[in-house]
Amino acid sequence: MDYSNREADARRLIKTIEDVASTLQATGSTDHDSRYIGMEEAVKEAIKHLFVALFPYHFGRARERFNPVEKRAWELMRCYDAVSRALMFVLDDQKTAEETADKLMHRLPEVLEYLNTDIQAAYEGDPAAISTDEVILTYPAFKAICIYRIAHELYVMRIPIMPRMMTEFAHAETGIDIHPGATIGKYFFIDHGTGVVIGETTTIGEHVKLYQHVTLGAKSFEANDDGTLVKGIKRHPDIGNHVVVYAGATILGGNTHIGDNCVIGGSVWLTHSLPAGETVTVRVTEGVQISSHD
Amino acid sequence: MDYSNREADARRLIKTIEDVASTLQATGSTDHDSRYIGMEEAVKEAIKHLFVALFPYHFGRARERFNPVEKRAWELMRCYDAVSRALMFVLDDQKTAEETADKLMHRLPEVLEYLNTDIQAAYEGDPAAISTDEVILTYPAFKAICIYRIAHELYVMRIPIMPRMMTEFAHAETGIDIHPGATIGKYFFIDHGTGVVIGETTTIGEHVKLYQHVTLGAKSFEANDDGTLVKGIKRHPDIGNHVVVYAGATILGGNTHIGDNCVIGGSVWLTHSLPAGETVTVRVTEGVQISSHD
Amino acid sequence: MDYSNREADARRLIKTIEDVASTLQATGSTDHDSRYIGMEEAVKEAIKHLFVALFPYHFGRARERFNPVEKRAWELMRCYDAVSRALMFVLDDQKTAEETADKLMHRLPEVLEYLNTDIQAAYEGDPAAISTDEVILTYPAFKAICIYRIAHELYVMRIPIMPRMMTEFAHAETGIDIHPGATIGKYFFIDHGTGVVIGETTTIGEHVKLYQHVTLGAKSFEANDDGTLVKGIKRHPDIGNHVVVYAGATILGGNTHIGDNCVIGGSVWLTHSLPAGETVTVRVTEGVQISSHD
Repeated sequence: MDYSNREADARRLIKTIEDVASTLQATGSTDHDSRYIGMEEAVKEAIKHLFVALFPYHFGRARERFNPVEKRAWELMRCYDAVSRALMFVLDDQKTAEETADKLMHRLPEVLEYLNTDIQAAYEGDPAAISTDEVILTYPAFKAICIYRIAHELYVMRIPIMPRMMTEFAHAETGIDIHPGATIGKYFFIDHGTGVVIGETTTIGEHVKLYQHVTLGAKSFEANDDGTLVKGIKRHPDIGNHVVVYAGATILGGNTHIGDNCVIGGSVWLTHSLPAGETVTVRVTEGVQISSHD
Repeated sequence: MDYSNREADARRLIKTIEDVASTLQATGSTDHDSRYIGMEEAVKEAIKHLFVALFPYHFGRARERFNPVEKRAWELMRCYDAVSRALMFVLDDQKTAEETADKLMHRLPEVLEYLNTDIQAAYEGDPAAISTDEVILTYPAFKAICIYRIAHELYVMRIPIMPRMMTEFAHAETGIDIHPGATIGKYFFIDHGTGVVIGETTTIGEHVKLYQHVTLGAKSFEANDDGTLVKGIKRHPDIGNHVVVYAGATILGGNTHIGDNCVIGGSVWLTHSLPAGETVTVRVTEGVQISSHD
Repeated sequence: MDYSNREADARRLIKTIEDVASTLQATGSTDHDSRYIGMEEAVKEAIKHLFVALFPYHFGRARERFNPVEKRAWELMRCYDAVSRALMFVLDDQKTAEETADKLMHRLPEVLEYLNTDIQAAYEGDPAAISTDEVILTYPAFKAICIYRIAHELYVMRIPIMPRMMTEFAHAETGIDIHPGATIGKYFFIDHGTGVVIGETTTIGEHVKLYQHVTLGAKSFEANDDGTLVKGIKRHPDIGNHVVVYAGATILGGNTHIGDNCVIGGSVWLTHSLPAGETVTVRVTEGVQISSHD
């Protein structure tokens, strides 16, 4: 072992650290508290326990020495606990965090009521679905909608960052990006789902079915006098009841209302309203040589 | 420490749990056995060991005290074991699970033969690919196709839930959603891949190349007299040999046959058959002010 | 317990292993060293420590017994260490790996400078963004661009496989697929992001904004005399400054130059250049019955 070399290595390493540390400091955001460190893990843990609370027979832990009632109480207590802990990253004190967790727990029965209709819609709307178990255990749309419905409750309570972190976790897991601010009725189904985007101020009726890559997005953004964008105004469309939107369609704008029973074809790009019962599609040209394959 | 407060807190918590537990029970699916608890982890474990079994030089564990032959036997035994355990969640007894695992193990050589052609297709079809190692180690399409080809074997044996759970795991990891029921020939490549959907009754020939966001989907769903959808009929297209489908194209319908050597342009939405050698593209309008950017 | 049965089981298992092992060997890639085993974990670990090095106040560990300066040095040392270890899978000796890690560490301040402009662009370009913290903690585009900017530094140093493995990790996490070879200016933002593809030889100016499912891809591939594709030539477009590309648009080709201030509408499929200030969109036909919904 050549110890003089190792000493030179150590010296070089120290110099690198010092160089980089001093320069990173120059551009970095150092005047910042570190309140968010560990938050992502806490939020994922809360989501895990919320799934167990809502669907104990699919996501609970293996049978234990507890009897079923004790086990259920224990699952709900752990859920409450995990939610409180996650909320403490964004709320000012433990009491507020616990009260908020309490409120969320009391919303779970209604969330479950909605989710049961979503599961029904998936099972009935997809010929490939062989059971509701398959929907709960394997469908990405179920996971995304479940997380959205819970995050929406926290969004309504004006909790910062955490609702969005929850739906972005769902986005990472499923490719489905539903802003927690959106309002979505019962019997909602997204088939396949990758690339679906549903913006913050979207409203969706009941019995709506979306396919993959559908965007319900913003059209133009209003700017303040200083050029910065106005935040918090209605920017996304309203979708009626019993609407189907096929793969890759884009519907934009806060004044865009899609009436009941409309059908939007694949790849359509739509920036204005449609009356009830309308159908829209893109034109396709055949027999034309694509210039890119000459 | 104010103990009277802590007692009040504890009482409130107990009340929350009791409230929520009783209401959740009212809408929840309580008359359900818990056979699927732990299944997702078991299936992921099985997938991990199947990758090691097929590609020991890329996904195996670090060198150990075993000699190569012993190590290989140990890897295959662990794979068999992990597959058996996952199958026990969906099969009625251990014997059937082990026999099915046994059958799957015997299918691995042919699966590998197909996968080697897929790796070749990726390496030859993507100018950015610098080696087959890079394809195996980094390409999402490789991961998705590998999991699909194994899941398809279980689908053919009529194993419930597990094949779909496997391909939905691939979907979550790669954004590529291939139903285990699809039939796909050799030399299959998907470039980039995010958002690709391949439906249950799709058939694909040899040397086919898809790009991201391509949908091979269902057109209309036949309903039974009671309004529920008919399950299990041919709903998705047939794709010939040497077909290329560009980004965002959608091909729908069980009677839609795409002939050999067809080229389908980006964003095309196609619901009828094409003879061999055809090319299709969408029209683009230029110089038009988009209403959304006034 | 029926031991004769268990013995029969064991014998069957051994036979299965032997059968499969011998057949897998016949088609498998056995003449291969196992240098990549463990690489994926090492690269993920390096990415984790790079995030801590760049954004200690968001991704660092919880407060410890160290004072802030000691903690910073420790974080950077661990980052250097994790990067060196990952590089050893693709470089020939420890010295080269450490020198490369050293070089990368010295590039971090400039990487951070660029990332701070990207964070600014996200915050200013998305009305739903409520703080830069929210951008850093929850936006998939931030994660993908951060990993790309680091991977690009290694790509420029001609490090094999690792840069691509890094961006494919980002791809799996976010659905955003940026090849490490692409060249991207300051103030870059991708909204939602799922399905975005940016090819190896793409160049992008400053203040560019992409939406989900946008492809900046290759048009046609030049082939060598033996039919294999020519690798390493310019295949992807050049995008100017202040360009906006909406959801699902596809821009292809190495000779395709999009001028400053262009706006590309959703679902557009573009294979030729545009002068500065141009706007392109797809045609939509209304009131037409879609054949698939008769």
